[in-house]
Amino acid sequence: MAEPRISSIDGKLAEEFAVPSHVEEVKEKMAAFASFHAEAGRKVVLITSGGTKVPLESRTVRFLDNFSSGRRGASSAEYFIDSGYAVIFLHRHRSLYPYTRMFLTINMLDALEFQAGGVPGNTGEVVVNQQVLPNIAKVLKRYEEVKESRLLLPIEFNTLSEYLHLLKAAAQALSTIGSKAMFYLAAAVSDFYIPASEMPEHKIQSSNGPLQLSMKMVPKILSPLVKDWAPQAFVISFKLETDASILLDKARRALDTYRHQAVVANVLDSRRGYVVVVTPETQAELILTEEDVKNEVEIEERIVSNLTSAHDNFITQQVA
Amino acid sequence: MAEPRISSIDGKLAEEFAVPSHVEEVKEKMAAFASFHAEAGRKVVLITSGGTKVPLESRTVRFLDNFSSGRRGASSAEYFIDSGYAVIFLHRHRSLYPYTRMFLTINMLDALEFQAGGVPGNTGEVVVNQQVLPNIAKVLKRYEEVKESRLLLPIEFNTLSEYLHLLKAAAQALSTIGSKAMFYLAAAVSDFYIPASEMPEHKIQSSNGPLQLSMKMVPKILSPLVKDWAPQAFVISFKLETDASILLDKARRALDTYRHQAVVANVLDSRRGYVVVVTPETQAELILTEEDVKNEVEIEERIVSNLTSAHDNFITQQVA
Repeated sequence: MAEPRISSIDGKLAEEFAVPSHVEEVKEKMAAFASFHAEAGRKVVLITSGGTKVPLESRTVRFLDNFSSGRRGASSAEYFIDSGYAVIFLHRHRSLYPYTRMFLTINMLDALEFQAGGVPGNTGEVVVNQQVLPNIAKVLKRYEEVKESRLLLPIEFNTLSEYLHLLKAAAQALSTIGSKAMFYLAAAVSDFYIPASEMPEHKIQSSNGPLQLSMKMVPKILSPLVKDWAPQAFVISFKLETDASILLDKARRALDTYRHQAVVANVLDSRRGYVVVVTPETQAELILTEEDVKNEVEIEERIVSNLTSAHDNFITQQVA
Repeated sequence: MAEPRISSIDGKLAEEFAVPSHVEEVKEKMAAFASFHAEAGRKVVLITSGGTKVPLESRTVRFLDNFSSGRRGASSAEYFIDSGYAVIFLHRHRSLYPYTRMFLTINMLDALEFQAGGVPGNTGEVVVNQQVLPNIAKVLKRYEEVKESRLLLPIEFNTLSEYLHLLKAAAQALSTIGSKAMFYLAAAVSDFYIPASEMPEHKIQSSNGPLQLSMKMVPKILSPLVKDWAPQAFVISFKLETDASILLDKARRALDTYRHQAVVANVLDSRRGYVVVVTPETQAELILTEEDVKNEVEIEERIVSNLTSAHDNFITQQVA
C-alpha cells in the first residue's frame, strides 16, 4: 500500500514547487545521453552538486541557502570520467564545475599577460602565465578531450523547486538503463521550504518588525526515486552533520528508511580528509593521510574508487 | 540626547555580531589607502557590494542570503576609477569583481586554447581565444594600469557580522579625509538576523519537524555612520523594492530618517535600465534608451556621473 504516500509526493511536487519550463526538454536530453553511452558500454552517473536556493518571496530578494561550494561534486565528476563513466552534472548555477574549479582561488586577470615580443597596444596575444596556473595545459587538454567525447552533460539549477523537478526527470530518464545508472546525490538540499501558495509576492518589509518564518518540511524525494522512478539504479546519498556523534546513526537510519545502496557520511569540519561509506552490510572509513595531502590527493578519488567497485558488484549481482 | 541610542547600536554590534579577527588590520590598511590618495588630491569612495550571509547555526550549514550578483558594485567601481576616484571595494566573497566580471557568463576553459604552431603536448603556450573574449586585451590592460596605480583596495566579507564591523571600520578610517570621502552603499544587506546567543551550535535537525525561525531586526547602521563615524562624508544608500508603488516614498523616508545625501532607488525587474537618484531637494530619473542598450552603455556609468558631480558640489559647499 505504498502508492498513496508516493503519489502524494508526486502531487506535492506538482502543487507546491514551481515546475521549470524546460524540464521536458532537459529530460529528453538526459535520456538520449544515457542511452547513447549505455549502448557504447559505459555506465552513467548522475551527480547532484551545490546548495539549493529556497526563496522567501515570489519576486525573490531573500532566500535560504545551504552551504556548499560544489567542490565535492565537481571533483567527483572528474574521477568518475577517469573511471570510464559518462556524467550528468546537475549543479547549482555558478557552483564549482569540473576542471574549471582550478580557477576558484585566483583572479583570472592575475593569471593572464600580454605575450612577450608581441605587437604593443591592444592587438597582441593574451597568454596564461603558467607560473600562476602551473596545471593549466594539463587541465585544458583533459577538458577538451572530455568535451570532444561528450562524456559530461551539465544541467543547472538555482532553486529547490528546479532541483526537485530536474532530479525526478533525471531519474526517469536514467531508468531506461537499469542498473548501469548510478545516482551520486552530493547536493546540499534544503530540508525546509515555503510553499508557493504561502509565499508573499513582494519583498518582506522590515518596517513590519521582526521576521517570523514558518517553513514546511521538504518531501523526502529519495523515497520515490528508489522505489518508483529508478528502481534498478545504484543510489548513493550523502549525509553531512556538524555533530560527529549522531552521524553514523543517521546514515544507518537513512539506509533503513530508503533502502538504497550507500550513504557517504561526513562531518563539516573534516569533510575534505575523512568520510565513511556506509552500506547495509559494511562501513568503510576513507582517510587522507598527511602524505596524501602533501601529494594533493583528493578524498573524492577514494570515494569514487570505492563506489565504482561497489557498483560493478551490484551490476553483476543484478545480472546473475 | 542622541547618544544612548547610538551607543546602543555600538553595543549591539559588539555583543550580537561576532567581530572578525582582522578588523583592526583592515582598518589600518583602509586609513593608509585613504590618506595616501587624499594627499595625492584624489577623492575616495567606499563601495559595498553583494549580499550578506546570515547564518542560522553557529557551525553553519544553513544561512539566509540576499539576492545580489554584485554587478552594480563591480561596474560602478570601474566608472569611479575612470572618474579619478580611488576605490575601497568592500564586497561579498566571490561576488562580481571589477574587470574580472567579464568572465561571469563563460566557462574560462572555453575561452582558452593551445597556441597554433606551438610544440605539441603539455608544454605549449595557452592563449585566450579573442573570438570568445573580444574585449580581453582592453580589459587586461586597464586592470594592470589600475593595479599599478593602486587605485583599488579590495576587502571581502561573507557574513552580515563581517559586513557590519568592516563597514564601521571603513567609516572610521575614511573620517580622516572628511568630505572627500563618499560612501556608495550598494550591498544587499539583510534586515534580519539571529543573535549569536540565540543560535544553535549544530545543524538544525529536520527530524524535529517544521522550522520556526524568529529573526531580529538588524540595527540601522546608516544612523551612526552619518552622525558619528564619518559625519563629513558624502553618503549614498540604495533602496531596492519589488513593488514600484512604494519605492519613492521609502527613499524619501530614508533621507528624512538618516539625513544623508542621496538614495539610489530601483525596482528589481528594471534595475539595469532605470533608477531614480533621490536627494532632499531633487529627484533625477536615469534611464537607458534602446539605443544605449545596443551600444552596451551601462546604467552605472550614469549613476556614477550623477553622483560624482553632486559630490563635487558637496565638497565646494563644505569649504565655502
